[in-house]
Amino acid sequence: MDGCESTSVRTEPEDVIAAFDAFERRRYALASAQAVLEFSELTDPPAASRGRGVAMAELEAADHDLLCGKEAAALLDAMRQIASELDADHAARLRVLSRDRADRLRIPAALESRRVELVNRSSAIWKEARAADDWAVFAPAMEELVALYREIAEVSAPEMRPYDFWLDQFEPTSSEASFDALFDVVTPRVQEIAARVRAATDEGRLPSPPALRGPFDPAAQYAFFRDVAAFEGIDLDRLELAETIHPFTSSVDSHHVMIANHADPEDILSGLLAAIHEGGHALYESSVEGRYDYTCLAHGTSTGIHEASSRFFENYVARSAAFAPALRGLIASHFPEAVEGVSAHDLWHLVNEVRFSTSRMEADELTYPLHIVIRYEVERALMAGELTVSEVPARWAELYERSLGVRPTGDVEGALQDVHWSMGLIGYFPSYALGGVIGAQLLHAMREGGVPFDETLAAGDLSPVRLWMVEHVWRFGRAKDTADILLDATGEPLNPRYYVDYLEEKFNPSSSPFEK
Amino acid sequence: MDGCESTSVRTEPEDVIAAFDAFERRRYALASAQAVLEFSELTDPPAASRGRGVAMAELEAADHDLLCGKEAAALLDAMRQIASELDADHAARLRVLSRDRADRLRIPAALESRRVELVNRSSAIWKEARAADDWAVFAPAMEELVALYREIAEVSAPEMRPYDFWLDQFEPTSSEASFDALFDVVTPRVQEIAARVRAATDEGRLPSPPALRGPFDPAAQYAFFRDVAAFEGIDLDRLELAETIHPFTSSVDSHHVMIANHADPEDILSGLLAAIHEGGHALYESSVEGRYDYTCLAHGTSTGIHEASSRFFENYVARSAAFAPALRGLIASHFPEAVEGVSAHDLWHLVNEVRFSTSRMEADELTYPLHIVIRYEVERALMAGELTVSEVPARWAELYERSLGVRPTGDVEGALQDVHWSMGLIGYFPSYALGGVIGAQLLHAMREGGVPFDETLAAGDLSPVRLWMVEHVWRFGRAKDTADILLDATGEPLNPRYYVDYLEEKFNPSSSPFEK
Repeated sequence: MDGCESTSVRTEPEDVIAAFDAFERRRYALASAQAVLEFSELTDPPAASRGRGVAMAELEAADHDLLCGKEAAALLDAMRQIASELDADHAARLRVLSRDRADRLRIPAALESRRVELVNRSSAIWKEARAADDWAVFAPAMEELVALYREIAEVSAPEMRPYDFWLDQFEPTSSEASFDALFDVVTPRVQEIAARVRAATDEGRLPSPPALRGPFDPAAQYAFFRDVAAFEGIDLDRLELAETIHPFTSSVDSHHVMIANHADPEDILSGLLAAIHEGGHALYESSVEGRYDYTCLAHGTSTGIHEASSRFFENYVARSAAFAPALRGLIASHFPEAVEGVSAHDLWHLVNEVRFSTSRMEADELTYPLHIVIRYEVERALMAGELTVSEVPARWAELYERSLGVRPTGDVEGALQDVHWSMGLIGYFPSYALGGVIGAQLLHAMREGGVPFDETLAAGDLSPVRLWMVEHVWRFGRAKDTADILLDATGEPLNPRYYVDYLEEKFNPSSSPFEK
Repeated sequence: MDGCESTSVRTEPEDVIAAFDAFERRRYALASAQAVLEFSELTDPPAASRGRGVAMAELEAADHDLLCGKEAAALLDAMRQIASELDADHAARLRVLSRDRADRLRIPAALESRRVELVNRSSAIWKEARAADDWAVFAPAMEELVALYREIAEVSAPEMRPYDFWLDQFEPTSSEASFDALFDVVTPRVQEIAARVRAATDEGRLPSPPALRGPFDPAAQYAFFRDVAAFEGIDLDRLELAETIHPFTSSVDSHHVMIANHADPEDILSGLLAAIHEGGHALYESSVEGRYDYTCLAHGTSTGIHEASSRFFENYVARSAAFAPALRGLIASHFPEAVEGVSAHDLWHLVNEVRFSTSRMEADELTYPLHIVIRYEVERALMAGELTVSEVPARWAELYERSLGVRPTGDVEGALQDVHWSMGLIGYFPSYALGGVIGAQLLHAMREGGVPFDETLAAGDLSPVRLWMVEHVWRFGRAKDTADILLDATGEPLNPRYYVDYLEEKFNPSSSPFEK
């Protein structure tokens, strides 16, 4: 990785391309090592953590030097000079790698290292604050974060509003304007539907289905999750499964994806729905063109469309009425006693129960976007200087009161519930909201495209759904941006109408899943 | 890792040292990643292997560029200029890193990449040859290997004989002369003892103790191996255990050691003795001064002394008469039925049974060196051009016939039994023989030094033994060479007398463990 030593860029096109490919393989090696080291935290002995931290920081720095170094600049220039001779893949790689480098260079190194240092500090302080259930403990770190994030945005992109800069960092091309347009449609409609559901609840018009009978042996649950992954269509030769507290998916390349899941001995549905959700992420990562492995085109193209893939399988598939019998069958295959006396219809009710709660993590499909909007409003106000950090808990409670009719009893139930800000993810939450919206638009296009969705789900065969996603979304990796994928796959730009129509139809108290 | 970008070496001593420390941390990160990626092969999904191979090769190349690059040269020069101001640790690091760089630079890059390519090819061919049980299938690759290894030696160190060059590569300062001196003492004495044991066997004077009663559940065995590691004194907070076919030990730094072991459902002794052997390696790695982590001084200082540590616990501890009751107790703690009707004395017989076999892997403590000498003779003749590759099977059979009185029935039982040559490890075997010799010399010094060895083992308390090894051998890591460790710990250079005297006393048919 020593620029002085490594192949200097020559002028023959094939030599330039060979040097470019070699450069990408070097970055792949560093990224692969980071992914494997990070995932190994789940199995490493406790004493290994310090050394892993040292190694992770060095590998990150090595990739920064590589991407921002003189050699990369020369290589990209040389590639641009032969742009007309490049095949489509190399042209896409030149475009994406150039953008990645520009993004990385835009933030001054001094500010970036201050940011990394602050984020490392903040995570520990956030844990202390949670232990004390006291926002005031986290407030000083949060004030530093907001100030630094505003400074970074102002220095790196003076032409943008600070919050826009960070929204764009996490979901390219997104902005306050684009999210306002989205939430202006979504929020009122969801509120209407939620109000009707609440009324139905208060009037006792909602059924209370029997719970699944546990307990559920954790080891048996992990064996179950493996079969669920296979059922979902994940190639088990590419899948690594591990145990954790908060489920997540990671990947090295399209041939090596990792899912970490949890197993609650009292509740099989939590792990099952997480397995299906993470499975959607894993299907995306493992469906990217294999020839993109070891290049900057590997992996999904944005958080929004990744969440669309995971929520598609969690909500539009697993929580659908059509799939309920297959879902029941899946559970019965490993835990037959759990579903004794529980019909597919009961199960459907169980996985669609609407909870007006203070917790985003436990939110149901309907109220989830309301939790996101609250965070969006708080972040926006903080970054605009219209809200002080100390005012966050009060604003948080007020927004929850107004939107969901509940008030957190403390800060852990309130503004301290998410780890994101302490990890420096200010501007990240809104991209989650895109998941449901994009997914519904894809679902509409899929049906228009002739996929017999309900019949397929009823038959317990997900391959037509999967194949459509591979063809229109997943295979492109980072070679295609979210906006282009959406336009080509659905014929129109992001349109929240499909999402709210879907919710309207599904969460209609005068119809299933609410009729008694 | 881009030399052009990274901190240039300044002239202030503290800046030079800071740059040197940073340089070492960068190499640590690459080594750590390689160790974790390599070990992850045991748990990764099958499809992950290709990407892991790409990443491993790139990380290796990155470390090569880093160590051989201009930046390293400037850094080492700057360190030499302030040598008088360096503390002992930094002085040792300068010495070891300079030597590592010189060793790496000595072999021309073109020859080294040819070697790497050939070794990768050879492993696959060796597997084919084994499947066909036919040396002729492997012969062409072996011919290339011998030719290339001779060429590399002649180009890299024209002043040395080719085989000496490779012996020195694997065990610094060793040579044909040093191994001849060793084997001239060891071989005839071991042959004498073996002849007496054989006679005793033929005359039926050897007891045949009852076997341990199985089967042994593999999961239960791995839980057992964990407790064995704890008993041996390994800090479980630093230990990662995994399953494999051929047991081995690896490490990231002193705070993260990995042991891979196997569990034969029919045989608990195989896995138990492997656990104790690998535990010796793990104790060494985890006992190196913690302040050497992230530097070139971490890890053991040579193969010979590493094998001395592992064989010390496997043979001088676990196979000793004094420890037999404790060994029986260990087994009884997890598999009580296995040792019913088997006395500690029986167990001692079981683990000391002498087998005149064609297999090095299954060799007993007494005949093990004879297997090594055979490989030494064959390698020496090949490298000297006195033996052609096609003549190896015949020579192999002839040497086994003469030395152990057995002839392999095929090449898999013969010259194809070891993976080493196909991995490019020509000249590696002899360092194994040092293990027993160094270990016996250390044992003698330990007793002279006042460690009540037999009493300690009889009491089932290994801490005095462990503490002596930490104090005199392990803590130094690579800061001290094998020869110096031996001299300071035992008061004399390598002396095989202690080894043969030990074998003489132990394997004496007129005494235990052979009296009926």
